[in-house]
Amino acid sequence: MISFKITQKSKKSNARVGLLTTPHGSIETPSFVNVATQATVKTLTSQDLEMCGAQMLIANTYHLHVRPGEDTVKKHGGIHQFMKWQGPIMTDSGGFQVFSLGFGKDYGTGKILKQKSYEKIKQGAQPKLVKITEEGVEFRSYVDGKKLFLGPKESIRIQEKIGADIIFAFDECTSPIADHEYNQRALERTQRWLKECIHVKKSDQALYGIVQGGKYKDLRIASARYTAAQAVDGFGIGGEFGDSTATMRSMLRTVLRELPEEKPRHLLGIGHLKDIEDVIKEGVDTFDCITPTHYARHGYVFVNSKSQTLNSKWEKIDLGNKKYLLSKEPIDKHCDCFTCQNYTRGYIHHLLRAYEITPLRLLTIHNVYFFNKYVENLRNQIKKGKL
Amino acid sequence: MISFKITQKSKKSNARVGLLTTPHGSIETPSFVNVATQATVKTLTSQDLEMCGAQMLIANTYHLHVRPGEDTVKKHGGIHQFMKWQGPIMTDSGGFQVFSLGFGKDYGTGKILKQKSYEKIKQGAQPKLVKITEEGVEFRSYVDGKKLFLGPKESIRIQEKIGADIIFAFDECTSPIADHEYNQRALERTQRWLKECIHVKKSDQALYGIVQGGKYKDLRIASARYTAAQAVDGFGIGGEFGDSTATMRSMLRTVLRELPEEKPRHLLGIGHLKDIEDVIKEGVDTFDCITPTHYARHGYVFVNSKSQTLNSKWEKIDLGNKKYLLSKEPIDKHCDCFTCQNYTRGYIHHLLRAYEITPLRLLTIHNVYFFNKYVENLRNQIKKGKL
Repeated sequence: MISFKITQKSKKSNARVGLLTTPHGSIETPSFVNVATQATVKTLTSQDLEMCGAQMLIANTYHLHVRPGEDTVKKHGGIHQFMKWQGPIMTDSGGFQVFSLGFGKDYGTGKILKQKSYEKIKQGAQPKLVKITEEGVEFRSYVDGKKLFLGPKESIRIQEKIGADIIFAFDECTSPIADHEYNQRALERTQRWLKECIHVKKSDQALYGIVQGGKYKDLRIASARYTAAQAVDGFGIGGEFGDSTATMRSMLRTVLRELPEEKPRHLLGIGHLKDIEDVIKEGVDTFDCITPTHYARHGYVFVNSKSQTLNSKWEKIDLGNKKYLLSKEPIDKHCDCFTCQNYTRGYIHHLLRAYEITPLRLLTIHNVYFFNKYVENLRNQIKKGKL
Repeated sequence: MISFKITQKSKKSNARVGLLTTPHGSIETPSFVNVATQATVKTLTSQDLEMCGAQMLIANTYHLHVRPGEDTVKKHGGIHQFMKWQGPIMTDSGGFQVFSLGFGKDYGTGKILKQKSYEKIKQGAQPKLVKITEEGVEFRSYVDGKKLFLGPKESIRIQEKIGADIIFAFDECTSPIADHEYNQRALERTQRWLKECIHVKKSDQALYGIVQGGKYKDLRIASARYTAAQAVDGFGIGGEFGDSTATMRSMLRTVLRELPEEKPRHLLGIGHLKDIEDVIKEGVDTFDCITPTHYARHGYVFVNSKSQTLNSKWEKIDLGNKKYLLSKEPIDKHCDCFTCQNYTRGYIHHLLRAYEITPLRLLTIHNVYFFNKYVENLRNQIKKGKL
């Protein structure tokens, strides 16, 4: 099980500093949660993650079910032993894959739909590659095309075998164009599924219920109230919040107001640098996002902003740009990560241009370190009464 | 400049133990030289190489000329500073690329031609993609198709800018099906080019002359005698030696007999585990090979042999094989490398199957460590009078 203690509350916002204690140690919140989809943070080892200041990881139930299978993970002694990470780990429930591998694949979109794409997609369209019933979701494995079924029972059974410290209830993450009626029905399923998850869980892993409801305020409130009333150890906030930070913030405020403040809240799959400060100010404790690792593998790094005129503390730069060829500077002069302590922008630019594998890890190390440090700084600002 | 001191000679073979001292430190020979074609050993950092017991690296003149260009490397303070490797580095001359990017590309073959392929290829065929003249070789860049010219003058000029401790004279590496007449003409060019390399070199880098002559004993002897008589600091032995270890050994013996024993000998591009002991017994001091890194990226690792009946000290295993899924053993129980100290065969198998990037480095670390350790053990056996 877990325990959560709020050690400090901001007077300027809803931000809070806390200590989340799990069977694999304690972490300070707010904290970034590093994405280890297939039991590895892409390009890194667990030793690298420690060096990058990572506190907690989130692995993917659906992906690990498909490959290598939860029985394999269990036979290896559970996910901590399997990947040699002795800190806390979460697994999501697989519900998001209902969306991303269904609707997302059909329309080539993420959960936040830009207005332009929105107009192209038929209102009310539902995923074609997955079949959602009252019992759960029928998938096809992306590995071998085999039919797979995931429902609340299956999700919990799988997550118990994987053995993370914190697991999530199985939910339906609706598409950004699903209408109010569809969202209402999906929410009713998600609520029934939560009851079933609580009922079938035998392990002493912590269980988070997930608040859904799409972009509809009334449904979000209903979902938050319902989830708050269940025997859960914490809350996930899932689904879409519109494509602007302002919309997301207002929806988060609406939802978090309904949740008991003493339990931890995890925002699922959101954590771009531009959002982190706002999310923390609304009272989110943990959040995960692929941004640092995904961008690194495409040659992009985040650095402390040099410009004093910009209303921003960071910049994103493309190290594939030829202008860095002769640079003898580190990625970020103010960064203490392994990469910045050892290599120049020019050398890394060369390695990227030469299609080497080495720079993918070097850039991931920097970005993961940068994100964890960025959140640590915000945490310190709350402690100092500045945020 | 370099100095070379033979500290022990075997009584059982022509093997010798030596100390090769360069401006970037000394290495014990015989030594494996790790291949850093584009100023990185694929998947690794320089810190990884140190951890893997690497003593010396060899980078590629042709590749670095094409990208990022020798002027860029020079502006970064030379190759040691560029890639942050403070140990000794060699650069080859680019001569091998005359072959591999010309004939090799035409026929899809390496320098050791199997009998089967041999029969398919017209006797006397020469490369189509490169044009060899008395002054040098005309290439097309594989990056942008631009015409490039590399001759002895150009090769030395480029290698001086790259700034390795040891550089090689520009030579022509003939194809495995080149006849005696062609090899004779090529050798005459290589000899003239060596003179020119010695003449134009202004730096105090050590220069190795390259013995060529294809599979023809008379030409190999002529080449060795000619090269031995020049003002070079050491010798490279290049080109093909037939496709059996026995043929290679006999040709090596023929060649090395003609070379002054006090100067170091480097065998270019040969160093599969099956050959290393033989090569060392013939009196080779250093040798380079892509085997450990190349195989690692394809999921293959080298391990100490468990079988006492096999007449071999090692085995190659394919970690992509499903039978390793549940293995909780390290790659090699007797190995002290980072990977074997931390991860299981089962976990690495999963990562390979999941197309992750992390295992490519983990396997490279093991293989590079294994090769360097393997050679260290042979060195110790010479010291103990056992080899």
